[in-house]
Amino acid sequence: MLPVLIDVSIKTGNTFGGNDVGDVAVIGKGMTRFAKFLERPLRDLAHEAVNAALGDAGLSVADVEAAYCSNAIAGLITNQEMVRGQVALRSMGFEGLPIINTENACASGSTAVHLAWTAIKAGLYDVVLVLGAEKMTHPDKRKTALAVATALDVELPIDPDAKSPFMDVYAEKVRKYLAHSETTVEDFARVVVKAQHNGSLNPVAQYGGSVTVEQVLSSAMIADPLTLMMCSPVGDGAAALVLASEDFVKAKGIKNSVTIRSSVVQSGSSPDKGLQAGERAAALAYERAGIGPDDVDVIELHDATASAEIMRYESLGLVPEGEGYRLVRDGSTELGGPIPVNPSGGLLARGHPIGATGVGQLVELVGQLRGECGPRQVEGARVALAENGGGWIGGDSAVECIHVLVR
Amino acid sequence: MLPVLIDVSIKTGNTFGGNDVGDVAVIGKGMTRFAKFLERPLRDLAHEAVNAALGDAGLSVADVEAAYCSNAIAGLITNQEMVRGQVALRSMGFEGLPIINTENACASGSTAVHLAWTAIKAGLYDVVLVLGAEKMTHPDKRKTALAVATALDVELPIDPDAKSPFMDVYAEKVRKYLAHSETTVEDFARVVVKAQHNGSLNPVAQYGGSVTVEQVLSSAMIADPLTLMMCSPVGDGAAALVLASEDFVKAKGIKNSVTIRSSVVQSGSSPDKGLQAGERAAALAYERAGIGPDDVDVIELHDATASAEIMRYESLGLVPEGEGYRLVRDGSTELGGPIPVNPSGGLLARGHPIGATGVGQLVELVGQLRGECGPRQVEGARVALAENGGGWIGGDSAVECIHVLVR
Repeated sequence: MLPVLIDVSIKTGNTFGGNDVGDVAVIGKGMTRFAKFLERPLRDLAHEAVNAALGDAGLSVADVEAAYCSNAIAGLITNQEMVRGQVALRSMGFEGLPIINTENACASGSTAVHLAWTAIKAGLYDVVLVLGAEKMTHPDKRKTALAVATALDVELPIDPDAKSPFMDVYAEKVRKYLAHSETTVEDFARVVVKAQHNGSLNPVAQYGGSVTVEQVLSSAMIADPLTLMMCSPVGDGAAALVLASEDFVKAKGIKNSVTIRSSVVQSGSSPDKGLQAGERAAALAYERAGIGPDDVDVIELHDATASAEIMRYESLGLVPEGEGYRLVRDGSTELGGPIPVNPSGGLLARGHPIGATGVGQLVELVGQLRGECGPRQVEGARVALAENGGGWIGGDSAVECIHVLVR
Repeated sequence: MLPVLIDVSIKTGNTFGGNDVGDVAVIGKGMTRFAKFLERPLRDLAHEAVNAALGDAGLSVADVEAAYCSNAIAGLITNQEMVRGQVALRSMGFEGLPIINTENACASGSTAVHLAWTAIKAGLYDVVLVLGAEKMTHPDKRKTALAVATALDVELPIDPDAKSPFMDVYAEKVRKYLAHSETTVEDFARVVVKAQHNGSLNPVAQYGGSVTVEQVLSSAMIADPLTLMMCSPVGDGAAALVLASEDFVKAKGIKNSVTIRSSVVQSGSSPDKGLQAGERAAALAYERAGIGPDDVDVIELHDATASAEIMRYESLGLVPEGEGYRLVRDGSTELGGPIPVNPSGGLLARGHPIGATGVGQLVELVGQLRGECGPRQVEGARVALAENGGGWIGGDSAVECIHVLVR
C-alpha cells in the first residue's frame, strides 16, 4: 500500500498542533438532484439543499452560527462575482451570521467543508452550515466551456477555438499515462460502465443507466483519448451539510452523526518537485485519521474523467503506481466489490456542478455510513473517504482535498 | 459609548468556546503602492507584496505552511475566475501548500485574515501567509464599473446605464442619513480633506495632497450627494501579512510582533432585524478584545465613501448615533487628534483595490503599532482597530469584518 511507504515528514504544509476541541461531526445532509436546470436560479437550488440538510439534522435556521459557501463560476455564468453565498442564502434567515465564500476550482466544495471544520476545531462555533452550489448551464454553451477553462492559469496559451480548453490540457496527461502503463482505453470505458450503473441506482444523479464499453468508446471524441461519455457532464445543483462540534452532538444526544476524522487541503506542485498533490493529500489524510487504505470501506473520488478515477486508485494507495486498471478490470471497485468507488455514480453519472461536487460527495458518504443508500448501499460501511481535486496548473491538480469520515 | 450598551447576548453567530491555543500575531507585513497599474499583471503585484511581507518577517517561503488569498473581481477583470491564489502565487515556491481562496466583496481581505487566524487558532499551522491582491483597472472602464456592481445582488434591478450602479444604490442610504442627522455635505468634504492630507504622508498611497472643502464639493457629482472626490478611486495593488502562533513568536524570540486580539466577521441583516452588521461586529470585536472604543488609539476604517467614514464613527461607538460629524468638524480624527482615523489616507486616498484593502488596513496598523509610520505616526499607539465592510444587500453591508490589534 503506497501511503505507508510515503515519508510524511516531507514539507506538508501542516503541523497540526495539539489544540483539539474534539472531533467535528456531520449531523445533517441534503442536496438537490444534479441536472440541467437552465431555468432555476442558483438561489433556488441552494435553498432546496439547505432546507434538506437542516431538516435532516432536525435543526432550524436559528441553530446555525456561521455558513461556509462554495461556488466556482457564478461570476462568469450569472454575473454574481461577489458575495455569492450571501446572495444564495438570502431571505432564508441567515442574515447577520458570518458568511464566508470560498473557491478552489472543482475542489471548492470540500474546501468549504475544510474551512467549516477548521472553525469548529478553533472553537468558534458549535453548528455550521456548508453550502456548495453551482449553475453551469447557460443559454450560450460556449460561456460554460470558457468558464471551466479558468481552472487553468488563464495567462498560459489556450486555444480559443478549442471545444474544451480544460480537457485539451488534461488529455495530455492521460496520453502520457497510457504510454507508461498497461492501462487501455477499454479500462476507462469500464469506469464509465460502473459509474452509469451506480448512477442508475441514485435518485439524485444527473445520469445513470446500462451502457456498454463499446458505447462509451464510440461516443464523440472530446480530447483524445477521452470520449464524451468519459467526461463528467455540465450540470447544475446544490448540496449542503450541517457540521457540529463533538460537544453539541453529545449535548443533543445525536445518534446518527458521522465523524470527520481528517480534513486535508493540498495544492499541486511541479512534477519535478516530489510527490504530486493527490499522493501528499492521501498520505496526510490517512496519517491524521490513523488508518491506511485497507481500512476504507467506501470511496467517492473525483472522476472528472474516467481516466482520473484509475489514476486516483493509485494516488490513494489502493494499488501500486501503474496498476489502477486492475481494480476496474476485476470488479474490485464495483458495488459488492471489496472497495466500492463512487457508489453515487461519481462525477461521471451523478454529475459535477463544480462548487457543489465536493459537498455532494460527503452527502453520499454520510448516507452510506448511515446505511441509507438502498440499492447502492455498501453493506456495513464504517470508514469512508472523499477525494476532490480542482484545477490544473504546472502538470498537477491545483488543489487536492481529502476527507475521511467514520461512523 | 455605544457598544457597552449593546446587548451582545443577541444572536451573534459566534459562541467562541474555550479552545484557545493562545494569541495569533502578525509578524510580517508588506504591500505594493496602490495605484493604477494597467500594465502590471496581478501576479506581479502579488509577488511584490508577498516578498516584502516575508522579508519583513525575516522568513523565507519554506517557513510558510499555508496561504489564504483574497481577490474579489479577477474573474471579470482578468478572466481568472478560479484558483486565483494558486495562480497569483505561482512560481514563488508555495506549490504544494494548502492554498485557500476567499471572497467577501470589499471585505475579502479581512476575511482572508480571519480564515488564517482561525486556522492558527485551530492549531493547524504556526506560520501562515495572507495575500490580498486586486487588479481593477481594465482598458474598458465600463468593465470595472460592472464588476464592482456585483457586490450587490445582481438579480435586483440595476440601471444598466448608470455611471456607477453600486454607488447609486449606496447613495440612497446617504440621502436618508443626511435627512435624519445634522450632518452636512461639508462634513463629508472635511473627511476627504483629512484623507488626502494623510495620503500625502503615505508613500504607498494612490493619492494624497492638499485639497479644500470647496474643491471636494465642486468635483463631479457621482451619485447625489457624493462627488467624485468623496468616492474611493479605482486602483490596483496587493498587500500581504505573515501570521504566526504565539508558540512560534516565543520560540523565535520575535520582538516586534503585533497581536490580533479579536477577529470578527458578520453579515448584514434587513433594517427591521435589529442591529446592523457594523454595530454587531463592533460590539463583538470589543467584547472579545476586552476593550471599549475609548481604549483604541488608531483606526483604519472602510471609507469607501466619505459619508461611510462618518457613519462608521457611530457604528464603532466612538460617538452616539447621528453625531459622527462632530469628530470630523472638531478634528478629533485627524493625525494629532485624540483618535486618528485612517492615517494611511484610507480608501479615499491610499486607494481601494478591493481584495487588497482589508489586508492593507492591517499593514498600516501594524506599522503604526510598531511606530514605523514617520510623519503620519500616531504617537504611542498601542491598540488599533481595522473595520472593513463589503457589499450591499437588503439595506445593510453584506459583510462586516473587524480586527483589533495590540502591541
